[in-house]
Parts: sequence; C-alpha cells; structure tokens
Amino acid sequence: MMLDRHPAGPRTPGTAIRGETVPTVPPASTASDAVDVTALLERGRTLATPVLRAAIDRLAPPMDTVAAYHFGWIDAQGNPADGDGGKAVRPALAVLSAEVTGAPPATGIPGAVAVELVHNFSLLHDDLMDGDEQRRHRDTVWKVHGPAQAILVGDALFALANEVLLELGTVEAGRAARRLTTATRALIDGQAQDISYEHRDRVSVEECLEMEGNKTGALLACASSIGAVLGGADDRTADTLEKYGYHLGLAFQAVDDLLGIWGDPESTGKQTWSDLRQRKKSLPVVAALAAEGPAAERLGEILAADAKSSDFENFSEEEFAARAALIEEAGGREWTTEEARRQHTIAIEALDSVDMPDRVRARFTALADFVVVRKR
Amino acid sequence: MMLDRHPAGPRTPGTAIRGETVPTVPPASTASDAVDVTALLERGRTLATPVLRAAIDRLAPPMDTVAAYHFGWIDAQGNPADGDGGKAVRPALAVLSAEVTGAPPATGIPGAVAVELVHNFSLLHDDLMDGDEQRRHRDTVWKVHGPAQAILVGDALFALANEVLLELGTVEAGRAARRLTTATRALIDGQAQDISYEHRDRVSVEECLEMEGNKTGALLACASSIGAVLGGADDRTADTLEKYGYHLGLAFQAVDDLLGIWGDPESTGKQTWSDLRQRKKSLPVVAALAAEGPAAERLGEILAADAKSSDFENFSEEEFAARAALIEEAGGREWTTEEARRQHTIAIEALDSVDMPDRVRARFTALADFVVVRKR
Repeated sequence: MMLDRHPAGPRTPGTAIRGETVPTVPPASTASDAVDVTALLERGRTLATPVLRAAIDRLAPPMDTVAAYHFGWIDAQGNPADGDGGKAVRPALAVLSAEVTGAPPATGIPGAVAVELVHNFSLLHDDLMDGDEQRRHRDTVWKVHGPAQAILVGDALFALANEVLLELGTVEAGRAARRLTTATRALIDGQAQDISYEHRDRVSVEECLEMEGNKTGALLACASSIGAVLGGADDRTADTLEKYGYHLGLAFQAVDDLLGIWGDPESTGKQTWSDLRQRKKSLPVVAALAAEGPAAERLGEILAADAKSSDFENFSEEEFAARAALIEEAGGREWTTEEARRQHTIAIEALDSVDMPDRVRARFTALADFVVVRKR
Repeated sequence: MMLDRHPAGPRTPGTAIRGETVPTVPPASTASDAVDVTALLERGRTLATPVLRAAIDRLAPPMDTVAAYHFGWIDAQGNPADGDGGKAVRPALAVLSAEVTGAPPATGIPGAVAVELVHNFSLLHDDLMDGDEQRRHRDTVWKVHGPAQAILVGDALFALANEVLLELGTVEAGRAARRLTTATRALIDGQAQDISYEHRDRVSVEECLEMEGNKTGALLACASSIGAVLGGADDRTADTLEKYGYHLGLAFQAVDDLLGIWGDPESTGKQTWSDLRQRKKSLPVVAALAAEGPAAERLGEILAADAKSSDFENFSEEEFAARAALIEEAGGREWTTEEARRQHTIAIEALDSVDMPDRVRARFTALADFVVVRKR
C-alpha cells in the first residue's frame, strides 16, 4: 500500500545543527492529553520485569549470566547493575491490549514477556551478524562473552518466548504463539534484507520501508495485539490492533532514523551523525537519494565515493555535517518527518475499527503520540 | 537415574583394528524381526520431505537457497544435488508415533517436519559455534555462505518449526509445540554444556551422559511422541513415548561415540579416529578416564599432554591408534557398548506401559534395534 508514494523533490535547504531536536509530530488527537504516558510505560515495565527475570532464571549457567548482562541487570564482572531497560513501549502495549477485551492488564504479561524475549533474541543475533560492538552504551554480548554465547543465549531467549506462552496451555496462548512466530519470521526476513542491502549501492524507499516494517513494525504489531489475543479477542480485533502496531512501528522507525542523524547525542546516547558513520541506508538517506535535483545528485556522488573510501572512519564532524545538510537539502529529512506523521495517523485511525473502552483507546493514542515526539 | 552407575575397571586389552565394526547389541526382542526397517525409514522420509521442502520454500531469498544447500538439495553453486539426507530416524519415529493413537501415519507429518527443522537449526548454529567446517561430507553453511547466514537461516528454521505446528491451529498442535520447545531448550542446554566441557580437563561420565541426553535424547524423545500428541494421545502416553525416545537417543549417541573412534571410515564417511582427532570427550574416553588401573592412568597423562601439544594435528595414524587401544584397555569401549545395550533395553521396556497395536510396537522395537546395530 505504500508502494505508490515517492519521496518529495528538493526542498528549501534547512539547517542541520547537531543536537537539534527532531521536528515533532503534533498529536493527532487531544483525547490522549489526560494520559500519563510515563505511568503507562512504568506499568508495563513493572508488570513484565519480574516475570521476565523469572524466565531468565530458568536458563542453565552460564546462559543466565550472559542474558542478565544483556538486559543490563549485571555488569561484565557479574556485579548487579541498574541498566537502561529501554523505553518499554512493547510491554506497555502488550498489557494495554489485554484491556481491549475487558481483561485485566495482567492477562497480557506472558505476551509482554514473550515479545521482549523475541526482541532481545534478535538484538543478540543482529549485533553479532552486524559486528556492532556497542548497545545501550555497553559492550555487546558477543564482544564480552564471545560469539558462541551470543548465538546460544539468543537461541535460548527465542525458545523461552515460546515456552512462556505455550506453558499457559490455553487455546489463546496457542494463537498468541502463532502470531508471535509470524512476527519473528518477519524480523528474520527484515534482518536478511538489512544484510543484503549493505552490499548494494542503492536501496529504494519502498525496499527500506519493507525492511523497517519487518524489523520494527511486525513485533510492535504483535505487542499491540498479544494481550488482546490472550484475553480472548477474535482474529479481526487482533488483526486491527496489529495494524495499529505495524504502522506505529513504521512511525517509530522513521523517528529513529531521524534521531540516528540529527538526534542530540546527550539524549540518544549515540555518537553524533551515528547512522551516517555506520553508512546506514536509513529512510532520510534513501528518500534523499530518490529525490531529483542537484542536492540528491551530489549526495549520490559523495556516498558512492564514501563507500570506497578507506579513510571513512577518520572523517571529521564537518564532513558528516555536510552530508547531513545535503540529505536535508534533498528533502530526506522533511520526507521522513512527514512519513512518521503519516504512519502515526494510519495507526491512530486503525483504532477506530476496534470496540474498546474510551480509556483504553486514549492510552493507545497517547503511546502513539509518545513514539513520534520522543527525543531518544 | 543413571548417576549410580560407574564405568567398569580395566579390561583385557582388545585389538583396536581400524575399521572393525562396533560390537553390536543383540536385538532385545524377536517381535521386530519381521519389520522392514529400510521401508519404515523410507516411509518417514517420503512423507516428510515434500512438506519440509514446501516449508523451506516459504523462506525469503537468499535464506531459501542457504537452507537448500544445508539440506543437500543443491550444491554451493546452486545446482540441484542429491544430498545424503541422513538416516531419517526422527521422521520415521514421528509418523510411527501417530499410529499409537490409531491415527494414520500422515497425522505425524507436521511433527516430523518440525523436529527436522529444529534438528537442522541446531546443526547450523552448532557448526558455527564449534567451528566445524564439514558436515555430511560437505562444507558447512557458515564456511560456504558466511557466519551471518548460518545464524539467520538457523533462526529461520527454528521459527518455521513453530509455524508448521501452530498453523494447524488445534489444541494438539499447541501441546506438540510446547513439547518441541522443551526439547529445544534441552538441545540448547546440551550445547552450552558441550562448549563448557571443551575448556575443562576432566568431564565425568555423569556429565557426559547428561549432555548427550540433552543433545541427542531430548529431540529423539520429542520425535517419538510428537505424532501421538498430534493424534490426541494423553500426557501419560506422550511422556512414556518420550521415555522410549530419550533412552533410544542415549543408545544412539553411545553407538555414535563408538563409531567416532572405531567406526569404519568407509561406512561413517568420517576420518579414522575422528573423535580423537577432535579431542572429543565422548563416552568411551570419559569412561576410560574414570576407570582405575594403569591404562586409565596412562591415558590420562597422554591426553593431558595432547591438550597442550602444538603438534597434535600432525599426529600419525599410529599415535591415534595407540590412544584408541588405551581407551579400550581401560574399559571405555566395552563400557560404552554395554551402555548402548542398557539404554536400548530401557527404551524397549518403556513401550510396555503404552497401549498400542502389536504391529506398531514391533516397529518401534525394530527402529531401536536398528539404531544400535548400525555402522554409520
């Protein structure tokens, strides 16, 4: 459905000041104004974390330790740590979705835990495949504990995800596990695309969106519906909640791609021009390259030269800033901002086709708003 | 339950002629004499392979190609190949177990395919973790297609295994998926143990048996019961069939460990003294080391020196033959042969507690006999 759209042409050049906040998307609805998103995220985290920790405790040594390191619960020496648990959007969505069916939020907990396990399985394996040495400001698992442990513990988290759901022994749990499996297959497809795109000079906007839909949309879709499935929702309701989550995922990723270039390092915890340093073919880049005009053309030449450069790692701040400015001049930044807004709108509109208490709808809306206005 | 047994002491030295066939275990029963095991294995293969191929076809490129290479359906250049599909004991067991419930063998097909997918997921990842460059006489996937593809396609096979079961959408499929998940967790535990044992000087017989139970027993247990679960068997029946399969797996592995040292390269397709060359702490080795007497002592000294030797890879046939002779002299070969027989007996006896047609029972028995008398 998104294949008919094309990036905008050249735009008025903007300033690419490092650390400038991402142009934020005005919330589509005011119904969410009264929702305390921080409390909502905290609720998901509070409900899911003890069950997640108990699941990890089931792993045989040394896998339990390696997993605890990955989650930031201990440091590389095994001492307790108070790691950055992330934004916890997925668990918040999973427990919220249980409320769609009138079930208590707790009904969604096994779903929240299973989704977190699958997400972290994919992080462990992706970091190894991509050779990424840092995640959440810390050395990645393969860097600290070696590649074999990264593979093995990733496998174990994937298996645990199924176990946590299937041991419920209900028909609903079987349906939830099936949807989670579908999402996991999409995650894997997305990673396969990501790897194959690395070796290519050009990636189209459509290909990039498809990859991001697989890598981010599918699991957010599952998170947004899995609590409802566990609460007994029918397939139509679950499919519609998945639609909300899928497009929310695309909005999330568009914002992530903006932050990956123009995010404030103080907020994101990443280096300046992070995605440019990694030569990532993210949305702003592919949208800029797909545009017409001198800026897009110049950008194409520069990036092609960069790909062959042996000195790329030593580039100065100014050199990356110049590339970011060209991406912006070619319209990549504005297009991606609009794309985030567009996906946010589709997500919110999907909610209209599902019967749910107003309070629950306002919370879904508030989480969607949060995803597009965040700075990290 | 096997922790109370200890390896026998020193034995009369035997001859360790390379290529000598493994002392075979006399079938425990004559009921299986009339069963055509070759036809039984062929039935499992014939029923499962088309469904397995259709499942692999669902993978996005290039994962479908990488998986097809792994299964031996194509060569490294992508040309069709007629690969060695292995002995196909697992699919034979899975479709046979459906018949326990009176269901047709075909009821077990999704179970057979799911078990094969999990088995091959673990091979892909284990070969990479262990750095093994050859499997079934061919270069391993990570060697041909790179580590990232080995990780990714392994993940995809694991996800497909769940998909193949859960898309059936039945309560039975949910139960089957849960049991498969338990077996997969055991597989992963076994690989974790295998990795940790590599870094240790000594491994006890009990630890070796526990590891082999996880790496081989658990999935054979699942294969032996999954068709019955899909056919609606109750938990007690499934548990008992799992017991049969678990002990059959231990018997299978004991025979594998014998073949890994004394197997005929013409039959096994492996190098002479294959497991000794890899310094594998397999059952005959750990049993020999655990024995008392001069041979065990001498073996311990030699293997400790080997572990530090930088010239190990250039050892001559005679040097490996001398180690094999010491293992045999210390009783490791005889103990392992007895262990295979013992596990075979427990497996067969487990069948007594399950109601099933005589014809089906005879087939389970025949498959158990086949596993312990094979030469490859």
